[in-house]
Amino acid sequence: MSEFAETTIRVRYVETDQMGVVHHGNYFTWFEAGRVDLCRHLGFEYKQMEIDDDSFIVVVEASCRYRLPAHFDDLLTVRTWITAAQRRIIHFGYEVMNQASGELLATGETTHVICDRRGRPKSLPEKYRKLFGVGAHEASPHPAGAHVSSRDGE
Amino acid sequence: MSEFAETTIRVRYVETDQMGVVHHGNYFTWFEAGRVDLCRHLGFEYKQMEIDDDSFIVVVEASCRYRLPAHFDDLLTVRTWITAAQRRIIHFGYEVMNQASGELLATGETTHVICDRRGRPKSLPEKYRKLFGVGAHEASPHPAGAHVSSRDGE
Amino acid sequence: MSEFAETTIRVRYVETDQMGVVHHGNYFTWFEAGRVDLCRHLGFEYKQMEIDDDSFIVVVEASCRYRLPAHFDDLLTVRTWITAAQRRIIHFGYEVMNQASGELLATGETTHVICDRRGRPKSLPEKYRKLFGVGAHEASPHPAGAHVSSRDGE
Amino acid sequence: MSEFAETTIRVRYVETDQMGVVHHGNYFTWFEAGRVDLCRHLGFEYKQMEIDDDSFIVVVEASCRYRLPAHFDDLLTVRTWITAAQRRIIHFGYEVMNQASGELLATGETTHVICDRRGRPKSLPEKYRKLFGVGAHEASPHPAGAHVSSRDGE
Repeated sequence: MSEFAETTIRVRYVETDQMGVVHHGNYFTWFEAGRVDLCRHLGFEYKQMEIDDDSFIVVVEASCRYRLPAHFDDLLTVRTWITAAQRRIIHFGYEVMNQASGELLATGETTHVICDRRGRPKSLPEKYRKLFGVGAHEASPHPAGAHVSSRDGE
Repeated sequence: MSEFAETTIRVRYVETDQMGVVHHGNYFTWFEAGRVDLCRHLGFEYKQMEIDDDSFIVVVEASCRYRLPAHFDDLLTVRTWITAAQRRIIHFGYEVMNQASGELLATGETTHVICDRRGRPKSLPEKYRKLFGVGAHEASPHPAGAHVSSRDGE
Repeated sequence: MSEFAETTIRVRYVETDQMGVVHHGNYFTWFEAGRVDLCRHLGFEYKQMEIDDDSFIVVVEASCRYRLPAHFDDLLTVRTWITAAQRRIIHFGYEVMNQASGELLATGETTHVICDRRGRPKSLPEKYRKLFGVGAHEASPHPAGAHVSSRDGE
Repeated sequence: MSEFAETTIRVRYVETDQMGVVHHGNYFTWFEAGRVDLCRHLGFEYKQMEIDDDSFIVVVEASCRYRLPAHFDDLLTVRTWITAAQRRIIHFGYEVMNQASGELLATGETTHVICDRRGRPKSLPEKYRKLFGVGAHEASPHPAGAHVSSRDGE
C-alpha cells in the first residue's frame, strides 16, 4: 500500500506539436515533476538529497502508454507513487488524468538506481530508506491509500 | 497604466543544463505561460481566441536579459503586462523574480502580430481591442496598476 | 529481417541537465528523428504522408532503457528499424550508440497506430504497406540486413 | 570582418507547435548549436574550454527577430559569427536560412560574459583571445569574409 502525490500541470503551448496535441516526450518531464513532488510529500527535498547526500535518483528505464491526447491549456493531474523500493533500485508508477473530464490520459513507469555525482551506483542513504518504504512495498500497478496533493507552481 | 498577471513557475529538472542552472531558452516558454495567464485575467481564454476567432498571437520578436540564474526547484514569479497595443501589433513586457529571495532574475520583451491560421496578418477582432487596451497604453518598461495572480497549474 | 536507418545526432547543450549528462527525455525525440529518417530511406517523406494521405503515425506506447550516459557534444548514432507492422499498428526498435567509443548507450521501442488528422484510427494506405513491410516482419529485438545511413542535418 | 560558421539543422517534429510551424523558442537552441560549431571552426572544442580552462560562455542577453516560419523536416542553415569581442564580453550574430528556398527566416543576437564554474565573471584565458578576435572586430550586423561549414550531426 502506497502513498501517492498529485501534481497539477497546465499544458504549455510549447508542449504541443503540429498534430495539435501534446507531444509524447513531455509526459516524461511531467513524471519527473511528479517524482519531485512525491519526495517533498514523503518529507524531503530532492534537490537537497543531491547536495547534502551526494545521492542522485538516476533513471534506467522509462515507459509510457498513451490512451487519450492532452491539449494546450488543459489542466492535468499527475499521480505518482512508489511501486517497489530496494536499497539500490526504486520503481515509480504514474497516471495522468484530465481534470475537467476525469479521463485517464496516460500511465507510466520508471525505474531508477541511486548514484553518486560521478554516476557510480550506491545504496540509498539510511535516512531515506524508511521514507521510500524500502522493503515495504508490494509491487502494484495502482496507487492506494492516503494521498497528498500539490501543484506544479506551489 | 497597465494591469499585469503573475504566474508561478516551479523550475523543472529538465530545464537545467550542465552549468547547474536553468538553460536560457526556457525563459521564453515561461513568458508564453505568462501571456496565456494575462489573457485569462483580461477576460478570455487564448485557446478559444484561436478556435473561435481564427486569431493567433504570433511572435515576431523576442528578447531576454539575464541578471541572475534560476535553479532547479526554485519557485519563480513571471510578471506579464502589455507595453503597447495596436490593431495589428501587441508588445508584452516580462519580469522573472525568485519568490524566496525577491530578486529580479530576468526581464524580457516580445512583439506579436495577429494572424489567421494560415499565417496571414489581420486586425485584432473588435471584441478583443478593449481587453488588450488597443490605443490606450503608454509604452512602459514597467508594469503598473492593479494586478492579478495565478499559478502555472491552477 | 529488417532494413534499418542510422541517424547521426550531435548532443546539444540544452539537452544536458544539472547531472552533467543528457536528460532522459531527449532520447524519445531522437527516436522520432530516427523514424523520420527510416521513412525517408524506405522511400517516402513522413511529412508528405501527413499532408497527402491524411495519415499520422501516432505513438501509443514508448519505452527506453538507459545503459550509459550521453554527454554534451557527443556524436551519437540512432539506429531505427521496424520490429513488426500490421495494417493498423507499427512497432519500431531503436539503439543509440556513441560513435567515438562504439558503446551502446540505450535501447528503445515505440508502438504506433495510424490515425487521420482528427485522431481517428485508420488503416495504413495501400501504397505504404509494402514499404513498411506489413505482414512481412518477424518481430525481432535487433536490426538485421541491409542498412541506410543519414545524418540529422542531411 | 569576421569568419562565420554554418550549421545545418533538420527541423524535428517536437520543435513544431499546434500553429503548425516551429515554436519560436527553438531558435535559441539552434543559435547555441551554431556557437559550438563556430568554436570548433575557430580551432577549439567548447566543451574542453569548460573542462580544461574553467571558462563558461554565459548568456546575458538574447534576442531573435522572426521573418518567416520554419516547418517540420525543413533543412535550415544557421550562420553564426562574432560581432564584437572583448576580454570579458562576446557578442554573436546569427542568421537562419531555409536551404531549399534560400529565404532568410530569422536573425538573432546574443551577448555573453565569461564565467568560472561558480558563475563568477572572469577574463577570457589568453589562449582564446586571438581565436575570438578580442579587440579585432568591428561590430557588424552581417557576417563577412571566409566561412566554414558544418552540419549538426557531423
